[in-house]
Amino acid sequence: MSKEIPYKIYLEESEMPKEWYNVRADMKNKPAPLLNPGTGKPMTAEELGGVFCDELVKQELDNDTAYIPIPDEIRNFYKMYRPSPLVRAYCLEEKLQTPAKIYYKFEGNNTSGSHKLNSAIAQAYYAKKQGLKGVTTETGAGQWGTALSMACSYLGLDCKVYMVKVSYEQKPFRREVMRTYGASVTPSPSMETEVGRKILEEFPGTNGSLGCAISEAVEVAVKSEGYRYVLGSVLNQVLLHQSVIGLETMAALKKYDIKPDIIIGCAGGGSNLGGLISPFMGEKLRGEADYRIIAVEPASCPSFTRGKYAYDFCDTGKVCPLAKMYTLGSGFIPAPNHAGGLRYHGMSSILSQLYDDGLMEARSVRQTDVFAAAEEFARVEGILPAPESSHAIRAAIDEALKCKETGEEKTIVFGLTGTGYFDMYAYEAFHDGKMTNYIPSDEEIAASLAKLPKVEG
Amino acid sequence: MSKEIPYKIYLEESEMPKEWYNVRADMKNKPAPLLNPGTGKPMTAEELGGVFCDELVKQELDNDTAYIPIPDEIRNFYKMYRPSPLVRAYCLEEKLQTPAKIYYKFEGNNTSGSHKLNSAIAQAYYAKKQGLKGVTTETGAGQWGTALSMACSYLGLDCKVYMVKVSYEQKPFRREVMRTYGASVTPSPSMETEVGRKILEEFPGTNGSLGCAISEAVEVAVKSEGYRYVLGSVLNQVLLHQSVIGLETMAALKKYDIKPDIIIGCAGGGSNLGGLISPFMGEKLRGEADYRIIAVEPASCPSFTRGKYAYDFCDTGKVCPLAKMYTLGSGFIPAPNHAGGLRYHGMSSILSQLYDDGLMEARSVRQTDVFAAAEEFARVEGILPAPESSHAIRAAIDEALKCKETGEEKTIVFGLTGTGYFDMYAYEAFHDGKMTNYIPSDEEIAASLAKLPKVEG
Repeated sequence: MSKEIPYKIYLEESEMPKEWYNVRADMKNKPAPLLNPGTGKPMTAEELGGVFCDELVKQELDNDTAYIPIPDEIRNFYKMYRPSPLVRAYCLEEKLQTPAKIYYKFEGNNTSGSHKLNSAIAQAYYAKKQGLKGVTTETGAGQWGTALSMACSYLGLDCKVYMVKVSYEQKPFRREVMRTYGASVTPSPSMETEVGRKILEEFPGTNGSLGCAISEAVEVAVKSEGYRYVLGSVLNQVLLHQSVIGLETMAALKKYDIKPDIIIGCAGGGSNLGGLISPFMGEKLRGEADYRIIAVEPASCPSFTRGKYAYDFCDTGKVCPLAKMYTLGSGFIPAPNHAGGLRYHGMSSILSQLYDDGLMEARSVRQTDVFAAAEEFARVEGILPAPESSHAIRAAIDEALKCKETGEEKTIVFGLTGTGYFDMYAYEAFHDGKMTNYIPSDEEIAASLAKLPKVEG
Repeated sequence: MSKEIPYKIYLEESEMPKEWYNVRADMKNKPAPLLNPGTGKPMTAEELGGVFCDELVKQELDNDTAYIPIPDEIRNFYKMYRPSPLVRAYCLEEKLQTPAKIYYKFEGNNTSGSHKLNSAIAQAYYAKKQGLKGVTTETGAGQWGTALSMACSYLGLDCKVYMVKVSYEQKPFRREVMRTYGASVTPSPSMETEVGRKILEEFPGTNGSLGCAISEAVEVAVKSEGYRYVLGSVLNQVLLHQSVIGLETMAALKKYDIKPDIIIGCAGGGSNLGGLISPFMGEKLRGEADYRIIAVEPASCPSFTRGKYAYDFCDTGKVCPLAKMYTLGSGFIPAPNHAGGLRYHGMSSILSQLYDDGLMEARSVRQTDVFAAAEEFARVEGILPAPESSHAIRAAIDEALKCKETGEEKTIVFGLTGTGYFDMYAYEAFHDGKMTNYIPSDEEIAASLAKLPKVEG
């Protein structure tokens, strides 16, 4: 009955998902629609089509179709780096001396170093299919920009990346990886766009922000013939593509008759968390199974745990539609000492609705505790985790230690979204005892939330 | 009969090798023994035991046992990151429009980023088993130091790494990865050792060299109670452990009835090349099969193609035994513009003997051609290769292009030893057109070879 469980469960290529799973189809309370900030009305396909590819607009707005076929070209690309392994953390379990059984779905075995590639190739594919010349995007820590560069290089599509200036300068290696894949990388704010010039005039020495880079990328996409804008998180389409993570995880678990009790993912905009939990949440929504699902976010950018469920702008420049989500306010900028991604002020509308409906939990963790978990994990499991992923490691270790106290043999599954090769400055600060924790005050968050746009809905 | 070949062939854990293969057992002409530089006599087990662990000394001297069991503890560690995939380079084939079938064995899916871990864990395991406190080693580019740090951290063994000063300063990220695993990393030359102090006195501003770092690591090992020295390449024991690469490759090929025509590996000291080709060379030596085997080395450090087969010191400090090998002379230092590893002046004695016996070919490639191949490969195969590995990619592409001319459907297998995440400065130089080629003059090589020690043998 119970087969011996290997260290790494690999699916056969023939067992890889042939369809993405759209969790919205099983949600009783659908995620709130994007609103046009001008009219306050839901964005139409036509309005969205000026910014996004047509097929992606369709996916963005589709709340009903549960399974959407993955085109063969995308499946073939997936085969270059997928199926990703579901790893039994035998060594971590032994180190912790816990009766819990810990598994992680490892998405870092590709050059972009993270799960971002799953959606990057899909978005690039649809852009190519529509006959476009290229795409524009922004990147902060650089995982998304790298993934998109890879995907565009593979398809022969032009790729313009607006990289937050401070990251452009502090992470030259990320920039060079993107250049290896032939992308043009511009530090943002730049003089190339209206919004960039305006910001530089107003704040001459600014280091840039994700919100500004989004605004620049959108402006260039809208104004350039044959270009569209693409985004690596938050959107419904992104969660759809990322469902490949959860579907593979579920297939691998079922292959060995493993039933998870707790599923844990880190949460910034929700791309990984949403993808990982989708099929499990589907079973939960359909009443077929129950799972504890835990979103883990940084204490320095706690949208779920300290934000408000409200309509807000997706970008700081306020050129994007409004989304209903758990948000800290589009003007909220996490402390500069905060390493890695998960810096987004808001959260996927899908996840926000699920959380609001009490279908999942959320917790925030402090940066130094995250890096302590990262190091503990690296030393026994041999993978150097990204700071983002390490938020999930922290929570998984904490849950496993609870099992040690209670003696419960719970099965914990968490998402290990990527590797930390380009985050060694943060590891260095941690080793040297120079890493600090920043937790925003109630006043700071309240001030930011006070500026939320006034929207009915 | 012919099954459809997936993008990635993964063995089951149960199909992983249970024994290493010792190619020396099948060699008619055995590799020449290490000599004591003082007496000119072959090093005895006792003499070697002061520097290396007892079990490793046994492996170093064993020219007869073909199969040596892999201890369970090492096999369990291997399971954390092995079996590594044998990848069919469908995308590269299509890009090149070649009838050749290209496969690569990818060893970069672990945090050390390379194949070095295969021997690091073995050497650390035997040190632990002998009851030692720790090990010392040197590292240049950092792959070996990282791998050893990981292995020692896993086993709770102390790890002292002497890192060539220029790399210590230029590759702070590598250093931080080692620190994450709890290793102490000292820039070499240091004031901690006699040989370090001597060198600093003689050359106050020196940036260090691999040869000097070896000498420091050996000195500390010999003088410290409970420590031994370990090395990541060149030695027979290292090739033995690395045979796991070739054994897995052969098993994966046989699973799909694939018979390779050409096997290609990059060559510095020979750890990867020797491991990859071992079982294939075994078949060749036993007359069971024939393969073209190609060693690829940098034009800036061409030990096979322009060196001499002679006894030489393994280190610049001349504290180590003499080895008979293809060498450029222990004083030869590759040009500073040369990126990545493969900087060693000599070559594994086993490979040197096989090459001298005409059982394999060798060629050298220029640095800019190597990076052009690396970039071409990355853009279609989605893996950012290490500069070292890219030497093999260059040769594989060249062979595939020959097939395109002749129309031959040859099967090419090459070793992709690791990832280039910590080599982005070199990629940057390449992108910016600032990368240059250095090819040593005949006079330079002759001058270095003139200083070879006088040894009969």
